[in-house]
Amino acid sequence: MLSPGLALHTDKYQINMMYAHWINGTHNRKAVFEAFFRKLPFGNGYAVFAGLERIVKYVEDLRFEESDLDYLREQEENYDPGFLEELRNFRFTGTLHSVKEGSLVFPNEPLVRVESRIFEAQLMETALLNFMNYQTLIATKASRIRQVAKDDLLMEFGIRRAQEADAALWGTRAVYLAGFDSTSNMLAGKLFGIPTAGTHAHSWVQSHENEEEAFRRYAAALPDQVTLLVDTYDTLGSGVPHAINIGLEMQRQGKRLRAVRLDSGDIAFLSIKTREMLDQAGLSDVKIVASNDLDEHTILSLKVQGARVDSWGVGTQLITAADQPTLGGVYKLVAREGDDGEYIPTIKISANPEKVTTPGAKDIYRLIDRSTGKAIADYLCYPSETDIQEQAPIKLFHPSHTYLSKLVENYVAEPLLVPVFVEGKRVYQLPDLAEIRRHHKEQLQMFWPEYLRMMNPEHYRIHLSDQVWLTRASLMQRYIDKGK
Amino acid sequence: MLSPGLALHTDKYQINMMYAHWINGTHNRKAVFEAFFRKLPFGNGYAVFAGLERIVKYVEDLRFEESDLDYLREQEENYDPGFLEELRNFRFTGTLHSVKEGSLVFPNEPLVRVESRIFEAQLMETALLNFMNYQTLIATKASRIRQVAKDDLLMEFGIRRAQEADAALWGTRAVYLAGFDSTSNMLAGKLFGIPTAGTHAHSWVQSHENEEEAFRRYAAALPDQVTLLVDTYDTLGSGVPHAINIGLEMQRQGKRLRAVRLDSGDIAFLSIKTREMLDQAGLSDVKIVASNDLDEHTILSLKVQGARVDSWGVGTQLITAADQPTLGGVYKLVAREGDDGEYIPTIKISANPEKVTTPGAKDIYRLIDRSTGKAIADYLCYPSETDIQEQAPIKLFHPSHTYLSKLVENYVAEPLLVPVFVEGKRVYQLPDLAEIRRHHKEQLQMFWPEYLRMMNPEHYRIHLSDQVWLTRASLMQRYIDKGK
Repeated sequence: MLSPGLALHTDKYQINMMYAHWINGTHNRKAVFEAFFRKLPFGNGYAVFAGLERIVKYVEDLRFEESDLDYLREQEENYDPGFLEELRNFRFTGTLHSVKEGSLVFPNEPLVRVESRIFEAQLMETALLNFMNYQTLIATKASRIRQVAKDDLLMEFGIRRAQEADAALWGTRAVYLAGFDSTSNMLAGKLFGIPTAGTHAHSWVQSHENEEEAFRRYAAALPDQVTLLVDTYDTLGSGVPHAINIGLEMQRQGKRLRAVRLDSGDIAFLSIKTREMLDQAGLSDVKIVASNDLDEHTILSLKVQGARVDSWGVGTQLITAADQPTLGGVYKLVAREGDDGEYIPTIKISANPEKVTTPGAKDIYRLIDRSTGKAIADYLCYPSETDIQEQAPIKLFHPSHTYLSKLVENYVAEPLLVPVFVEGKRVYQLPDLAEIRRHHKEQLQMFWPEYLRMMNPEHYRIHLSDQVWLTRASLMQRYIDKGK
Repeated sequence: MLSPGLALHTDKYQINMMYAHWINGTHNRKAVFEAFFRKLPFGNGYAVFAGLERIVKYVEDLRFEESDLDYLREQEENYDPGFLEELRNFRFTGTLHSVKEGSLVFPNEPLVRVESRIFEAQLMETALLNFMNYQTLIATKASRIRQVAKDDLLMEFGIRRAQEADAALWGTRAVYLAGFDSTSNMLAGKLFGIPTAGTHAHSWVQSHENEEEAFRRYAAALPDQVTLLVDTYDTLGSGVPHAINIGLEMQRQGKRLRAVRLDSGDIAFLSIKTREMLDQAGLSDVKIVASNDLDEHTILSLKVQGARVDSWGVGTQLITAADQPTLGGVYKLVAREGDDGEYIPTIKISANPEKVTTPGAKDIYRLIDRSTGKAIADYLCYPSETDIQEQAPIKLFHPSHTYLSKLVENYVAEPLLVPVFVEGKRVYQLPDLAEIRRHHKEQLQMFWPEYLRMMNPEHYRIHLSDQVWLTRASLMQRYIDKGK
């Protein structure tokens, strides 16, 4: 949206491979790629999928501009001109399935599945991962913070520490869809309709002769949304007493001081003292906002210490996902069109067992217990396997320790992948953010609390169908025996 | 550049404060803000300043679009229409000084200094920090990696793990200015002229019936830049032997296999074995590229283990600065125009001594020993203090332990802040990237190795002039005594 011309927002090797396919005449062969991650971030029990809106707009706008072609021509004078002509006509003509934004997702399940000419699917890998990795990471972090903050007001305050402008913007959207209440980010407010919130900075106080006068003038200018920052000089010694004077003046004028903000020092101690001082002054309705390098751990700790904070401004730690700033999602070829037009499942072997891919284009179903309404497990199968749709009793087994199994009956199988583009045409209507927030809340309600807790959550299971499991095992065997 | 319309890439409180100043009639008062960071990232001994080109373009393009004004009008129906009119005419009319990109910089020295109407300087805070914080962080990380890699080829491979599109683009620019050789990022190649590099992905191999055939076809399509990825199935069992076959075929055709790439497993062991296999096959000129979650620590460790790697592809850890994904730079009011038009120095007090700001608009000089050409210390003083420019002998003292002092003579004082905008007009010509890279190298040569080493570097000193020190001490006293 902010970034037109993203065709070259890709790795050089994608262009190299596109060229090599084109030279070899294999560029129109169909292929299926799946995007997934291998490990949950932050030790969390789930991730929150986000990034689809950005991906959809990227795919719809995906064109090579003349300046892109000029650049490629300069770069590689050996390129056949026919290749650049092929790029000039580039459009996405394939089919793309995706999980809905706000859904709870888990390792090793396809979140986005692209089925198209390999020429197209290859180009899109880099941008698609760039969008999905970051936004899913940040939505997950925000969802963790929401779990801890319970019903407190949560505000996103991170622009200045975000990793450049797009991160601030799309990160804020991810934060909001996962349950935050508002943001300080005005551009996100404008473009996505997210409620905005803000107080004033230390510089407001410093730009006046004294603190009380600065507060008074601020309150006069914006009487409906006065939150006073009380730590420019001395929180309890001057900031809070001055704020109380202003609060009482406003009270006399029939107005209301909304809140004071603590931005440094010992938030637990200061918030308790500030609450006492406000209450004693008859300002029990004035709220306390805290900020300063907060995340789910510090908020939890402050709550345990009895901090009297009504509202949390969360910045740096959230918008950069500071304790793990990358999701590590990958996009792997799972099937290719053979000479006869049939799909052939493909695998990537690795000395690290967790890096071996799962062959074939797959669907995901979430199995939901009819009696409790709660999720039992996710189930990966080929589209040809219909038993799951018929809700037949199904045996789920551990993919590595297959003797561990259980029979599941009386379930509903809810498909997680929805069609977004079919043969180049968008068939999915992007929901608005309110709808995505609702969906995320419903998803949370579908899981037992054990899976949702911040620390040491229970491990939610992803099962493979018999056919998927057998295909994987036989392909592994083939490459181990004679893949050479 | 990619993101037009960044006037609202700011925090709501900036707009609130602008409004409150406008209502109070103080919006045309002059103010001076300085951007700086308090702590070096990664335990490094220096940071590498970056972000100025982005800041300059932002400042030059800074306008409120009609859609921005419409949004603000909707948001806050109480806004006086005159305020929106003031925004419609918004231009930067102030003076901005900055350190040059590629310079080595240190905590608590002003990297960017903005002197303008407070109305303007306030709006710019958020975006300026967003750009400076990220790009300086990444340039610093890249410079660390360059120190460890010595003369090896360094390639940036991080787009898919970058925090959204702008981070990939501007992060790559920061990486390149700090000494990397190339990037996989095609958009960065196009927009900034950075050399691009790339191999192929596992999907290229998987999309063919067998690995050797995949290699052969890739080599035929792009014979001038063949690097083969050898770990799709089994690095030493199939990948390297297949690559050797192709290398020998190319040799017979008078061509050359450029390199093989290792992307998983034990890089130390695999690179040593691969080197042996290549050499034994008569392919000593084929290079070895390594990738897979590398950073300065893993590269150092691999070198210590005797890994035979010629070229490093560095992605995730670099483009997100994973071990510390934020610089934490701030932008503080240091002086405000009083009623009589004179500047009044301002301070922000904090219970944390390192968070107390240093009042007054300051210059920075780097003192360079004439006999060695090496930097002695940086020196902050007011523009009115001319003794430094006259290179008079100067007593440097520790700002907290003032009895620690030394007399410095026979030095050159090089100013670090250069004028970029003067009264709204750009006076600084942005250097090209080659020039910035040269400047960064020269900067490194100006420092003793003790300051540059990756671990436990020597602490480079930043000194305050007598006047700066005295102003700070007296303002602190004033607010501690009676700031209330």
